[in-house]
Amino acid sequence: MTKDAKTPSPKDSHYARLRREFRDRNKESTKADDRSVRLYGLHTVRAALDNPRRKISRMLVTRNALARLELREPLYFPFPVEIVEPRAIDKLVGEDAVHQGVMIEAEPLTPKRLTALGETQLVLVLDQVTDPHNVGAIMRSAVAFGAGALITTARHSPAETGVLAKSASGALEHIDHIEVRNLADALGELHKAGFETIGLDSEGPAELEKTFSGSKIALVLGAEGKGLRQKTRETVTALARLDMPGAIRSLNVSNAAAVALYAARRHLVG
Amino acid sequence: MTKDAKTPSPKDSHYARLRREFRDRNKESTKADDRSVRLYGLHTVRAALDNPRRKISRMLVTRNALARLELREPLYFPFPVEIVEPRAIDKLVGEDAVHQGVMIEAEPLTPKRLTALGETQLVLVLDQVTDPHNVGAIMRSAVAFGAGALITTARHSPAETGVLAKSASGALEHIDHIEVRNLADALGELHKAGFETIGLDSEGPAELEKTFSGSKIALVLGAEGKGLRQKTRETVTALARLDMPGAIRSLNVSNAAAVALYAARRHLVG
Repeated sequence: MTKDAKTPSPKDSHYARLRREFRDRNKESTKADDRSVRLYGLHTVRAALDNPRRKISRMLVTRNALARLELREPLYFPFPVEIVEPRAIDKLVGEDAVHQGVMIEAEPLTPKRLTALGETQLVLVLDQVTDPHNVGAIMRSAVAFGAGALITTARHSPAETGVLAKSASGALEHIDHIEVRNLADALGELHKAGFETIGLDSEGPAELEKTFSGSKIALVLGAEGKGLRQKTRETVTALARLDMPGAIRSLNVSNAAAVALYAARRHLVG
Repeated sequence: MTKDAKTPSPKDSHYARLRREFRDRNKESTKADDRSVRLYGLHTVRAALDNPRRKISRMLVTRNALARLELREPLYFPFPVEIVEPRAIDKLVGEDAVHQGVMIEAEPLTPKRLTALGETQLVLVLDQVTDPHNVGAIMRSAVAFGAGALITTARHSPAETGVLAKSASGALEHIDHIEVRNLADALGELHKAGFETIGLDSEGPAELEKTFSGSKIALVLGAEGKGLRQKTRETVTALARLDMPGAIRSLNVSNAAAVALYAARRHLVG
């Protein structure tokens, strides 16, 4: 690691700022190391490096992956960077993980509270969906279709893991993850804020497209098999189904989320 | 296993037929046992049992799962059925596999040729997408939205595995999987059969919805990261994008497939 230049140029000021923030974080940090997560994959790590909220403690990277990250000044990272062979990362994340030659250890992001919800027309609510592949893919679709937040319960919520982050392909760093203690109360708050809350249900009484009415939509999805909990079903503005003509009448939950987000986005701009 | 009744009642004729077919299959079969796949999960196994094309060699099932399969006559299966504890299945498929207490060993289904494509308005074409979670979820969405076939290349094609079958949640048994040697030639055949072939590409020149024209649509998707191969891009009728307003401009491939199938279905019925 090289020393700070005395007069920072605009080119290095970003990394100078990162270094200062890193020192400050370390002073503040009271978090135990065992909370840290291992994030891997080019998109995932690149997005984490670009996220000022993300607290990183070290990076392992191959020479090849370092080039592919397209960083301006890799030497200035405010945390240890080890140039390694791919198998050093295999050992830490498992051989099945497609790490693409780069891994960081970082603190999980702190979920926000519902009061932090900003101006947005579209949010996604998960009722106890925990599978990390699905939740990661859902985060990616939520960011792609411009949802302003992903709301989950604090209990039965997906843990931030390498698998989730890899499936999210960087989206983890782009979406506000809001955790609530009681989902029915949160839906009530969303109603007060002008949201129509629509629960996806394969047996729902109406088609999703015909259910959209206002200009603020919260889509609510339950876990595969279990679906929405009874209290959730009773609280949402409406239950709606995606019409499917085929022999199978339900989608993988991340696919259902993608289709619902797409349909909602078309309603909102249409 | 009981002997055939002399005068089969309607109630047992289904299983009598299965038993005869099983004997005939065994005579015909020249396939080595090591081609067999292990399929698990309630939906997946139930759909396999209901598929007359599926050649099953044995089933391991817990007492609980046997009840949940809701079979009429479990004792009449034309293959050995072992009632086991869950950990016996864990040992065979791995502890991470959500087998729900049931597993079968079976032959993979034989992919069909393009000449077997029946009357359909919608097909899905995969250009070297191999991830089994994604391909399984894609099969499920393809069946749900009424696609008539899933077309893949013979090389770089997804292998039929327990993971793929579980992700497909029964859809593996419901869709015609067609394998072709040369994808560009196959697209040419689809054009002759009246299909508009649309390649999904995040940099595509037009929005998907504005690209649909005729009454027969083939959606073509490439692998994550790599996208469509050059020859595929040159051969399709059109390249099109899904419009995404957010900070991330590409979806997980199974989510992209679900949204594209949904949009195509809306065009076809609209």
